[in-house]
Parts: sequence; structure tokens; C-alpha cells
Amino acid sequence: MKKIDILTPVGIFIGLTAVFTAIYSNAAGAGQMGDFIQIASILIVLGGLSSAILINFSLADLKTLPKVLKETFQTRENNLQELIDTFVDLSARARREGLLALEAGLEDVDDPFIEKGVLLAVDGIEPDIIKDIMMAEVVAMEERHRKGRVILEKAGEYAPAWGMIGTLVGLVLMLQNLNDPSTLGPNMAVALLTTLYGTLLANLVFVPMASKLALSTEEEVFVKQIVVEGVIGVQSGQNPKILQEKLSAFLPNHLKGEEELTEEKDKDE
Amino acid sequence: MKKIDILTPVGIFIGLTAVFTAIYSNAAGAGQMGDFIQIASILIVLGGLSSAILINFSLADLKTLPKVLKETFQTRENNLQELIDTFVDLSARARREGLLALEAGLEDVDDPFIEKGVLLAVDGIEPDIIKDIMMAEVVAMEERHRKGRVILEKAGEYAPAWGMIGTLVGLVLMLQNLNDPSTLGPNMAVALLTTLYGTLLANLVFVPMASKLALSTEEEVFVKQIVVEGVIGVQSGQNPKILQEKLSAFLPNHLKGEEELTEEKDKDE
Amino acid sequence: MKKIDILTPVGIFIGLTAVFTAIYSNAAGAGQMGDFIQIASILIVLGGLSSAILINFSLADLKTLPKVLKETFQTRENNLQELIDTFVDLSARARREGLLALEAGLEDVDDPFIEKGVLLAVDGIEPDIIKDIMMAEVVAMEERHRKGRVILEKAGEYAPAWGMIGTLVGLVLMLQNLNDPSTLGPNMAVALLTTLYGTLLANLVFVPMASKLALSTEEEVFVKQIVVEGVIGVQSGQNPKILQEKLSAFLPNHLKGEEELTEEKDKDE
Amino acid sequence: MKKIDILTPVGIFIGLTAVFTAIYSNAAGAGQMGDFIQIASILIVLGGLSSAILINFSLADLKTLPKVLKETFQTRENNLQELIDTFVDLSARARREGLLALEAGLEDVDDPFIEKGVLLAVDGIEPDIIKDIMMAEVVAMEERHRKGRVILEKAGEYAPAWGMIGTLVGLVLMLQNLNDPSTLGPNMAVALLTTLYGTLLANLVFVPMASKLALSTEEEVFVKQIVVEGVIGVQSGQNPKILQEKLSAFLPNHLKGEEELTEEKDKDE
Amino acid sequence: MKKIDILTPVGIFIGLTAVFTAIYSNAAGAGQMGDFIQIASILIVLGGLSSAILINFSLADLKTLPKVLKETFQTRENNLQELIDTFVDLSARARREGLLALEAGLEDVDDPFIEKGVLLAVDGIEPDIIKDIMMAEVVAMEERHRKGRVILEKAGEYAPAWGMIGTLVGLVLMLQNLNDPSTLGPNMAVALLTTLYGTLLANLVFVPMASKLALSTEEEVFVKQIVVEGVIGVQSGQNPKILQEKLSAFLPNHLKGEEELTEEKDKDE
Repeated sequence: MKKIDILTPVGIFIGLTAVFTAIYSNAAGAGQMGDFIQIASILIVLGGLSSAILINFSLADLKTLPKVLKETFQTRENNLQELIDTFVDLSARARREGLLALEAGLEDVDDPFIEKGVLLAVDGIEPDIIKDIMMAEVVAMEERHRKGRVILEKAGEYAPAWGMIGTLVGLVLMLQNLNDPSTLGPNMAVALLTTLYGTLLANLVFVPMASKLALSTEEEVFVKQIVVEGVIGVQSGQNPKILQEKLSAFLPNHLKGEEELTEEKDKDE
Repeated sequence: MKKIDILTPVGIFIGLTAVFTAIYSNAAGAGQMGDFIQIASILIVLGGLSSAILINFSLADLKTLPKVLKETFQTRENNLQELIDTFVDLSARARREGLLALEAGLEDVDDPFIEKGVLLAVDGIEPDIIKDIMMAEVVAMEERHRKGRVILEKAGEYAPAWGMIGTLVGLVLMLQNLNDPSTLGPNMAVALLTTLYGTLLANLVFVPMASKLALSTEEEVFVKQIVVEGVIGVQSGQNPKILQEKLSAFLPNHLKGEEELTEEKDKDE
Repeated sequence: MKKIDILTPVGIFIGLTAVFTAIYSNAAGAGQMGDFIQIASILIVLGGLSSAILINFSLADLKTLPKVLKETFQTRENNLQELIDTFVDLSARARREGLLALEAGLEDVDDPFIEKGVLLAVDGIEPDIIKDIMMAEVVAMEERHRKGRVILEKAGEYAPAWGMIGTLVGLVLMLQNLNDPSTLGPNMAVALLTTLYGTLLANLVFVPMASKLALSTEEEVFVKQIVVEGVIGVQSGQNPKILQEKLSAFLPNHLKGEEELTEEKDKDE
Repeated sequence: MKKIDILTPVGIFIGLTAVFTAIYSNAAGAGQMGDFIQIASILIVLGGLSSAILINFSLADLKTLPKVLKETFQTRENNLQELIDTFVDLSARARREGLLALEAGLEDVDDPFIEKGVLLAVDGIEPDIIKDIMMAEVVAMEERHRKGRVILEKAGEYAPAWGMIGTLVGLVLMLQNLNDPSTLGPNMAVALLTTLYGTLLANLVFVPMASKLALSTEEEVFVKQIVVEGVIGVQSGQNPKILQEKLSAFLPNHLKGEEELTEEKDKDE
Repeated sequence: MKKIDILTPVGIFIGLTAVFTAIYSNAAGAGQMGDFIQIASILIVLGGLSSAILINFSLADLKTLPKVLKETFQTRENNLQELIDTFVDLSARARREGLLALEAGLEDVDDPFIEKGVLLAVDGIEPDIIKDIMMAEVVAMEERHRKGRVILEKAGEYAPAWGMIGTLVGLVLMLQNLNDPSTLGPNMAVALLTTLYGTLLANLVFVPMASKLALSTEEEVFVKQIVVEGVIGVQSGQNPKILQEKLSAFLPNHLKGEEELTEEKDKDE
């Protein structure tokens, strides 16, 4: 269900291309990459950013970072229609053959969250407790994702701030060495580089990635909530037709795509 | 019910006219459009903006963008009084002829959301479940609109940031090539252009459009909530007069426009 | 109950006086009004601001603007003590003579919202439904006011942004015409004017007015909530003494002003 | 219970000392107070600030300002342990001698809020209504404090904005009078003064004071909630030991200070 | 359970190293530490910051500061699996030997919060009241931590603001003493130092530390909520297996680590 999200590398490529274009074909004079790479400037931005992140987070939080970064290069396809069909089938079977028969029907289901919910239902645990257990898991997942995401969000705040700190250091040095006016320009250029690095890191990497993770967590919570509704519906022996109606209401385009954004709906009217 | 919203194109036209006026009749010297168009600068702002958007959103989200943009050029007229009258009629008919008679009365109704609600009521489904199903649909619509809107909101944040990145690149290049002082001014002018592009895109296009979509979603949710209240009222056999009273309370100017903003109400007193 | 709010015109007058003082008695040299009025600069700020507002709002929203502006020049006096006395009287009368007798007692009441609530009570409608109807009206009023206010809030955001756009246009033109150094200063002065206009509009007009409307809406919602509590108390035949106690708890200075801000209360202790 | 809060005057004194130090022992040259006092600049910042505040608030709101300012120079000592003991005593007495006996026990209590609650309990009013009445009073107090605080918060926003307006006016004048280069520095210095005034007012006076009021309101709401819990516990005849346990849970250091911040608790473990 | 958090000192060390690197190996010229240390500038930032903090907070709040600072150098290891096992054991014992037998089982538990909860359960106090008491303690702890944290958050806002005030003072002095152009650079460098100090303090110390405290409070509240759920489950005689299921749902990686971030879960599928 998860696959490589081609958009993230493409986005980073386009962003870097835009910066390279700006450097090489700038109306203010054709630049050179070398003018834009200063090891010391890179060190201050990355060092300062790392220092703030290290103070801000615990080791346990930071250990989630590699997975979080990997996550931003992945996308998840959710087939909501299939999900709803699964529950309508389960619901029909439960009414026909009893809750115990559901265990056999789980063979086709390869989502451990659905499986767990159905097994709880088969065990005859009360709906309220099932809902509590399943929602606790959803909340725990949300919380887990949030922790990783917050690292990126904070990095998006610290990067420009440390870029500005680097620029201030450079400006102070430049202003204290005005003897040779010919160095004024290049020195100020170097000072501005850290601000450029910090802003670029924030707007090309950290902010979009954190925002992407937030959206994908929301999506996943949404799907899991449909599962919880479905499991409860199945256990309480709800009529499959009503269950279908209820779960379909969550669908983005539940009348065969004809309602995606209200514009479409208007065609029907 | 939906028609072209003349305000959006008019607004964009006025905005561009304001910018042209500023350029051609500027007290700082009559400018020329050519001075304000730099392909490289346009590329960096649009490229950087696109890169951040591509990283930020999934393909499924981005596919909604054309519809979302189209949506910003449309307006929706809601005749709330007519809507309320519909439910008062339905309510009277339901009390007179029974819920089943409502199916015939739906011929005059061309809003699929009302139709669906009434059919659920006719099917004898319990009010709580009807409310659940209908509200789930409202929430799903809200969520759908929100996703498209967030793209515009994020674009409104990334555009000025990438404008600033372009300006920083230009300033660094300018400062490293101070040999010929006569190029200082024009080069800095070019560097500032990307900030101008980014700010203009944000304040003429992205921010107002995102904000417009938020308001129109709110409006639509509001109308749909009246429909839900109406369907529940009809099914529970509420007195048409009380139902009218209840639904009319939502009306902006429910006493024949004499209460629009409290100022009007004071006249009556 | 509503009267001219002298504070708004006085405030605008003081604000303009402050600006005039700054211009005419500025230590940087006595200025002249003429130096601060540039038709083109005014056009770009107002034009840009209007364009963003036109895109942002629907025609229906914009039509509320004149009333909203008028509202900012008005103030409303609420006599909460009198309001509470009204309900205590109504409550006593209802217990003595029955709910039907309240209709006669309404002659002295000239607030249509109270009147409506009492008539609903007289009609024997259930408390929950009365509360629903009355609160729906409060929410609708809140929503109506909010719409008008949002226009001013957004204007307070767009005005400085378009001021900055105007300044950027001016700076680009100035930098591209550095031939005559003597024009540098005046041209930059003109460029800065649009930022001044935008900031002034935001901080003298839009932001304070929007904030004022928010406060007055809050106030009105607060008063209407007391009315709802009062009507429900009267209908449910609550003891007038307890009703008085309950409603008085909302009063800012309910023990004859001796509790206004905790400082006063401490005196009693 | 309320006494002068020495911290506020000390803080203002330290802040002004810091500014004086910066002026007199500045590495950029020993300054003079006179260079930093410009009547016109003071007028524009205070005038502009006042104008925005006058437009923003109603006369009734502004009348609370003197009390609010006085409040920021006061602190309140709350003896939570004593408060809890009071309720444990009242609870024991109520179980021993009946609710009516509480009226006599009120002699030692000099907090009108406790007194009121207990009297309501003695009157035999139902717990829910007592809670409603008392909480309405808490909410009304919170609201009252909030209104005064919002004036300071808004002043903290308007002050730097009007400082910037003053600087813009000064810059425009300076740029239009570049004939005599020797005046450039001093004129720009004067222009910057309004920004300095606005920022100083915000960060030395308005923002810290508004924030202090917010914290002290929170504290007071917290204490009053304990009182409400206590009164309800007493009336419902709760076991004094359990009531003590329940109310003590609110205490910051309820096990004789050994749990203040978790660090302490760890010692026990 | 608490130990030194090596990350905070490491982070501060890296941050300072980054700044030193920027100073000594800056492309704009090799700087000297001495150029970056100005006693007067340090005094204005620290003095101004202290003044705002003193006005903002009460003495009681400020007294928590040393503990709060110490807290940022500590980390807390929570063994959630062990915590859950404890409750499963207690639950099994309670069902086998009765609630009273739990008192003996507490010997192995060295967390006073668990101890307190179990003792309340042994005392036969009702679940609702136990929950109330325990949650009140959690809320009180949260509140206590929040107060300390807010000091750091506010310091993170005041530090850059006072840095800017110091820079404005320096700029005004510099501009009023333009006679000797050779001092222009160094004087401006000194003026910029206070902004550097303020920004550095905020982004290296205050903001990351406040943010770290917020995360660790969240973590602690989370653990304590599991304890509350566990105590209630034990008292209500819940089946140990169901209790395990319920509490395990909170676990980040409750199926033996195979679900840490959804990526892992997908492997199972």
C-alpha cells in the first residue's frame, strides 16, 4: 500500500534547479556555484540548527528522525471503496453466520488494524471497550507521528534564525574591518549566505516535509476512523445497507466520483 | 445555483491596473514594463514555489487544484428562505399524509443532499443515524474543500519566502561584483524583483483566493446544517410552525431583512 | 440603546493630529503636507487593497460593509441590572398568574429578542426547543457580525502588504535610474510613502475597527445569553430569588459595584 | 491578601537602568539623555497609540484601565493549604451538626466568595444550581479581567506599529531634504527614535504587564475552582477525609512540598 | 528513573562551537572573540530581559526557575511495558485475592503516583472519585510545569526584542556622531551585537529549552494517564487480558516494536 512518493525528489530537484538557474543566469551577473558555497557558513547554520534540535528533543525523539525522513519520500494509497466493501461483506456475513464466523473471513484482510478490531469483536468484548482500545491505538499513532513531525517543524523555525545569527556575526566582522573598501562587497555577500542557507533549508526541506507529514497523518487517522466505525457497525449487527450508507458518507466522491468538489454535484442538479 | 463570480476577475484586473499605474506614473520616474519582467526571476519564484508545493502535497491533493482554482471564479447563491419553505411544506405534508408521501414531494427538489436526507427519512431509518450519515457527508465535503484550500494557503506562504531567496541570491551576486559601480543600482533592482513577484503572487492571488474558499466552505456547511435540521424536524413530525421558527432563527435577516446587523433591529424598538 | 460612539471620531482625529504633528514639527526638518500626498501612491495602495478584498469576499459579504463601518461609530449601552429586574418581575408574575399572563407583561419590554423568547414560552413550547431557537438566533447574529468584521481584519492584513508592494515598485524604478544622484532621496521618499499609507491605514483604521467590532459582538452575545437564561428560568417556574441570584452572577459588579475587579472585593474582606 | 508587588517597580527600574547604561556607556560613543528625548517623537507614538486604543475600545472598557494598571503593581498571596483546611472543617461540622450549622462557622471566613457559596448550600439550593451560580461568577470575573488585559495587549501591538509610522514619516522627510549631508545622520537618528520608543513601551510596559495579568487571572480562577469544589463537597456531605484528598490533589506541593516539580518526587522513590 | 540528559550540554557546546567557528574562520576576515564581547551590550540585553521577566511574573513563579532550568538538563526514562505489566499483575492479583491484597503487592512499586492510586482503590473509594483525584493531580503537575516553562518561553520573546532595543540605541548614537567616518563601521558593529546576543540567547537557550520542557511534560502526562486507566481497570475488576489489550494500545510499538511508524507495520502486511 505504500510506495515511493516521486513528488518529493522531483520537488527537491526542481527547487535546486531554480536556485542554480537563479545563480547562473542572474541578470545581476552570471554567478558561479563556488561563490555560493562557504564551508564555514554551512557549518554555522548546520551546527546551530543541530544544537537547538539537540537541546529541544530527547534521544528517543531523535531516534525516530530517520524513519520520519524516509516517510516523507513515501506515499500511501488508500482504497476507501474497497475498505467499505470489506466491512459491508463482514457485516452481511456476521448477520448470516454469527460473529464467530468472522474469524474465517479475515483471511482476505491484510490490514492488522482491521484484523485486531474484528478479533476483539469476535471475542465478544463490548463495543465501548473495543472503541476505546482502537481509538487509543489511533491516538498513539497520531502522537508518534506528531513527535517526528515536530522535529522537522522546529528545524524549519531554527534554520532561518541561525542563518540570521551567522549573518549578524559576518556583518559585525565586516563592519570592524572597513579599512579595505574593496572587501566590503564580498564580505557582505558571504555574510548574507548564511541567511540564504537557513531560508533555503526551511522553505525547500523542513517546512514542506513537516507539512506533508501532517497531511499524511490526517489521512491515516481518517482511514482508521472509518475502520473503527466499521468494526463497531459489524459487531452491533447493523444492517449492511445502512452500514454502507454510513461509511460511504465519508467518501470524497461517494456517488461514483460525481461529487468531487461541489462543482460536480451541481451538474446533477 | 452556481454562477461566475465576476468579483474575482474584476479584483485581479484592478490589482494589475494598480501595479501598472504604479510603474508608469511613478513619481520616482516613469518606468517601463520591461524593467519589471525578468524571466530568470520569474523562474526562481515559480520554480521554488512549485518545488515546495510538490514536496508538501500528495498527487491526489494536487489533482484537486484545477477544480479549486475554478471554484474561486464561481459564486453560489443560496436562497435560504426558499430552503426553509421547502422543509415547512415537507413537514406539513408528512403530518397530513405520512412520511411515505414525501417521496412524491421530492420531484420539486433538485438538491441531491435534501433528496438523500428525505429518502433516508422515508426508509424509516432512526433520526440519530440519519443525522450521523448526513453530518459525515458534510464533514467529508468540508475536509475535501479544506485540502484544496490548504494548497493555496501554503502557496501564499512559500511565494514570499522564495521571493526572498531569489533576492538573497541576487544580492550575493551583486555584492561579489562591485567592480563596476554603475551596475549596482540595476542589479539590486533585479534582485528586488523576486521579492516583488513573491509578495504580489501572495497578496493578489493565493491569500485572497484561499480566504475566499474558506468563506464559501463555511457558507455551504451552514446551508447543509439547516438541511440536516430540516430533515430531522420533518421525520420527527415536528409542528410545521415550530419547524419554521427553528429554521428561521438561522436566517441572517429573518424578520424580512429588518434585523440585518443590529442597527436595523434597533429601528423596531 | 444605541448612540453615536464619540470615541471613534475622536480617535481618528487624534491619530491624524499625531501624524500632522510629526510632519510639521519633525526634528528632521519641517515638512509639508504636499510631500506626503502622492496620488499614484494612494492609488496603488487603495487599488491593491481593493483588488485583494474583491477576490477575497462575495458580493453578499461586501454589501454588509457600509453597515459594518457605521457600526464602528456607534456604541450600545446595556443596562444589565434592568434586564435582570425584568426577568425577576416576569418570573414572579408567571408564578403568581401563570405563563399566559406574561403576554400582557410584555408591554413594557421593547427588546424584540426578549419578546420573542417570552412568546415562545407562553406558547408552551418546551424549554429545550426554546433554547435551541434562541441560541440559533444568537449564533446567526454572531456569524453575521463576524462576516463584516472579517472584511476589516483582512483589509488590515492586505493594506501593509500592498504598501510594501508599492515601495518595492518604487525602489526598483529608483535603482534603475541612478543617473541623477540628486533624485535618489526624493524618489526613495516617494517609494516609502506607500508603506506609510498601508501601515497607517492598518493601524489607524482597519485593525482598531475590526477589534472594536469583535468586542461589541462579544458584549452582545453575552447580553443575549442572559436573556436566554432568563426566559428558560421564567418558563420553568424558577423561584424569582434564585433566578435573581443566578442572573446576577453574570453582573460585572453585582454587589453594587463593590466587586469591580478584585481590588474592590478586597476592601470588603 | 493583596499586597504591593515589588517586582513590577523593580523591573521597570532595572529596564530603565539598562537603557540608561546603554546610552551613557555605549561603545559607539558616550551619549546624552538629551539625544534620546524628542517631544515630537514622543507625541506621535503616544498620540498614535492613543488614537488606536480609543477607536478599539468602548468608554466602559477604558474606564477599567486605571484599576487594571493598579492591579499590575499588586500581588495576591493565596494560602491554598488554609483554604483546604477551611473546607475540611466545614465538611466535618456539616456532617456533625447539619448544613444549617455552617452559617455560624462562617464567622472565621472572610472571603465573600466562600461565604456566598456556603450560604447557598445552607439555603438548600441544589448542588447543580450552586455550581452554575458560582461558576457564572468565576466566568464573569475572568471576563472582566480579560477586558482590562486586552487593552494592554492591544497597546503592546499598536506601540511598535506607531513607532514605525513615526520612523517612516521621519525617513520621508529626511530623504526629501538631502541638500545638507551633515544633517543626514542626526535626522535619521531622530527618525529611529520613534521606533525605539514604540518597541520600548511594548517590551518594558505593555507586553509584560498584560502577560502578568493573564497569569494572575489564571491563578485566581484556579483558587475559585477549588472553592466551588469545596462548597459542593461540603453540601453533598462528602467524607472530610476524601474531600481533603480531592482538594489536596490541586496543591502544587501537596505532600509537604516534596513534589514541587517532579525532581522532588523522584527523591522519594 | 531520571538521569542527566547529555543532549542539552552537548547541544549548547555544539551551538557555541558553531558561533566560535563562524567568528574565527569567517570568510569576511578572521575575527577575535574580543570583538564580540561588549560588557555594556551584554548588560542591556540581560538587564532588559530581566526587567520584562520581573514585571511579567510573580515571585512564586520565579522561584520555580532554578528547578525548571535543572529539569532541562535531565531526562526521564519511562518503561511503559513494565508499567503495563505492573497493572496486569495487580489486576490478576485483585481478581484472585481481592482488592485488599493489593496493599501487599505495592512493595515492588516505587512510583508514589501508582501507590496513591492503588491505596485509594484499596480504601474502596468509588472509581469516579479516584479518577477525579488522580486527574486533578495530573492537571496540577501539568500546570506547575507550564508555569516554569512560560518563563522560558517569554524570555525567548523578550531577548530578541531587547536585543533590537539595544541596537536602536546604538544606531541613534552612531548616527548622531558621524563626524569621524572611521568610527562608523565599528560603532555599527557594536550596535548589531545586542541583536546578535538577543537572537543567540533565544535560539540557543530559551526557545529550545522551553520546547523541551513542553515535550517532557506531555510525555509525563501521557504516562500518568496510563496509570489512571490502570488503577481504574484494577479496581473495577477488569479482566487482566482486556486490561493488557487496553493499556497496550497506548504503546508506541506495542506489537514488539513492529509498528513503530507505519512503515514498520507495512512490512507485516
